[in-house]
Amino acid sequence: MLVHAYGAHAGDKPLEPLRITRREPGPHDVQIAIAYCGVCHSDIHQVRAEWAGTLFPCVPGHEIVGRVAAVGAHVSRYRVGDLVGVGCIVDSCQHCHECEEGLENYCDGMIGTYNSPTPDEPGHTLGGYSQQIVVHERYVLRVRHPEAQLAAVAPLLCAGITTYSPLRHWNAGPGKKVGVVGIGGLGHMGIKLAHAMGAHVVAFTTSESKREAATALGADEVVVSRNAQEMAAHAKSFDLILNTVAMPHDLDAFLALLKRDGTMTLVGAPATPHPSPNVFNLITKRRSIAGSMIGGIPETQEMLDFCAEHGIVADIEMIRAGEINEAYERMLKGDVKYRFVMDISTLGA
Amino acid sequence: MLVHAYGAHAGDKPLEPLRITRREPGPHDVQIAIAYCGVCHSDIHQVRAEWAGTLFPCVPGHEIVGRVAAVGAHVSRYRVGDLVGVGCIVDSCQHCHECEEGLENYCDGMIGTYNSPTPDEPGHTLGGYSQQIVVHERYVLRVRHPEAQLAAVAPLLCAGITTYSPLRHWNAGPGKKVGVVGIGGLGHMGIKLAHAMGAHVVAFTTSESKREAATALGADEVVVSRNAQEMAAHAKSFDLILNTVAMPHDLDAFLALLKRDGTMTLVGAPATPHPSPNVFNLITKRRSIAGSMIGGIPETQEMLDFCAEHGIVADIEMIRAGEINEAYERMLKGDVKYRFVMDISTLGA
Repeated sequence: MLVHAYGAHAGDKPLEPLRITRREPGPHDVQIAIAYCGVCHSDIHQVRAEWAGTLFPCVPGHEIVGRVAAVGAHVSRYRVGDLVGVGCIVDSCQHCHECEEGLENYCDGMIGTYNSPTPDEPGHTLGGYSQQIVVHERYVLRVRHPEAQLAAVAPLLCAGITTYSPLRHWNAGPGKKVGVVGIGGLGHMGIKLAHAMGAHVVAFTTSESKREAATALGADEVVVSRNAQEMAAHAKSFDLILNTVAMPHDLDAFLALLKRDGTMTLVGAPATPHPSPNVFNLITKRRSIAGSMIGGIPETQEMLDFCAEHGIVADIEMIRAGEINEAYERMLKGDVKYRFVMDISTLGA
Repeated sequence: MLVHAYGAHAGDKPLEPLRITRREPGPHDVQIAIAYCGVCHSDIHQVRAEWAGTLFPCVPGHEIVGRVAAVGAHVSRYRVGDLVGVGCIVDSCQHCHECEEGLENYCDGMIGTYNSPTPDEPGHTLGGYSQQIVVHERYVLRVRHPEAQLAAVAPLLCAGITTYSPLRHWNAGPGKKVGVVGIGGLGHMGIKLAHAMGAHVVAFTTSESKREAATALGADEVVVSRNAQEMAAHAKSFDLILNTVAMPHDLDAFLALLKRDGTMTLVGAPATPHPSPNVFNLITKRRSIAGSMIGGIPETQEMLDFCAEHGIVADIEMIRAGEINEAYERMLKGDVKYRFVMDISTLGA
């Protein structure tokens, strides 16, 4: 079937209206009429070919929510009309250790929602800036939030799970002091989630102006990371620091804030390397620097259910499809609180 | 009491015979007649003032074994004549979380065996290149090896515990694949210990010539790390890599060998930084880079007992005190298998 989409024909071209083909649902497939799609910073990197290997035409978007429009004959978990979501993963090998453990995000054969190989036209996956998507039911998530919140649920599918998974993995919760570095699309979710998990949350920002906003999101304390005195007051005190900043920056300033056996988990990867961290900071307190990439499908469902239960959604600004290029420019300036979401009903209108 | 020692008066001076003062044993002190002292690479850094803050005269040495010569009135655990050891730690605050957990090595008030502040003359601690040392019984370890092995036990007090502690902390054992990078003083102990713990041990060396030696130490496999093909054959397969190399080197080559959730633990800190590791290597498999520094007192005792039980000692070359400067030069060329040990009976002779 031909559907309306928004994408680019080359890295140096703006996004524009496209028509793309979606496969007819197979026996295990769910066809989803997309209502909203969140706009992730990865979308910009990929569609502008700032990361290696972008395939064109490129239709970004991996924070997808909508309603089931059709199901294959063997689909057991979803029915037409269900509210559902799709995140960064639409397929994986389904038989490696990672897949067996529900960590499809770490499967070597993971198929991303856009820019991954597929037998479907045009040979690579096309994402959520489109009216419909067809996905194997294993990679479809149930949305239990009220429908009125649907647009604000979309960013949970990437920004939400990317912060939820490391917070869970490194045991954020009551009695733990958790830092969140950066208050953007990921960071604002990290603050909300760590707070809901019961941790003592400290938000780090370079900008004095974000103090109040961070408190409103659920931070117990806010530290302006350029203020050495404020930083020093938190030396050796954190169990976990979730670092969402993808720009190269001084990791040592944050490593020094970890207590013994503390971990700083990076969820953003800079285009050029961070200054090399000081090994003494690791050795002297048995600290770790780790990385984490989105989350598996079962954990994504767990995250969505956790958010529904705790009334958590993203803070969003809705845009029309035609505003996407302008939205990208604003994102690059950090001018969004905190996630743009595309209203897919404006596609092809 | 005045005792013979070997040390330096300045960073650019060779080590020479000295006489130093040891305090009379207090109520909780053990006086030890030192028999042997291992020669650690840290000794060179410190006595040559390559690390900041070396205090002179400097008497290095923190791999100490000998016999109890006297005990204070309240010493309950040791008697005159006992075989004992002292490692890198001779005091700590004794009341912080770390001390309470027996992780004195991570206590902010840890007093090193040399170059740390003390009320004793000359105001900083003096190490094991000396005939006698007086240490609070809490920091004295029991040696259960046969006396004939005493010299080869000495390096366990630093090289042994520095590798044992991270191997235990990150669960080296049956079913685990453990890499050891560098086959020197630390690395050769890491191979022996990981093997005795039941792990599948892979030794990494830059030198084809060390293949047989690594196998003899207990490595199940040996990889020449400059051989890209050999390295690639181990991609994504290690649970733990213990990296003992303190020279700046490419960490990414080893990170890529860790399986999902694997950790590379650094126990050497380079004088100039490693090339900055690629964050994608961390993120894509939830890998960690960690650090570890020696070990606590209870774990050091556990390590000594484990080694006694498994018949593990270091491979050593014995030197006379007067050969120490020459030994340093050989160490800097990697020309030692694998640890020099000073025969303290040659001091003042």
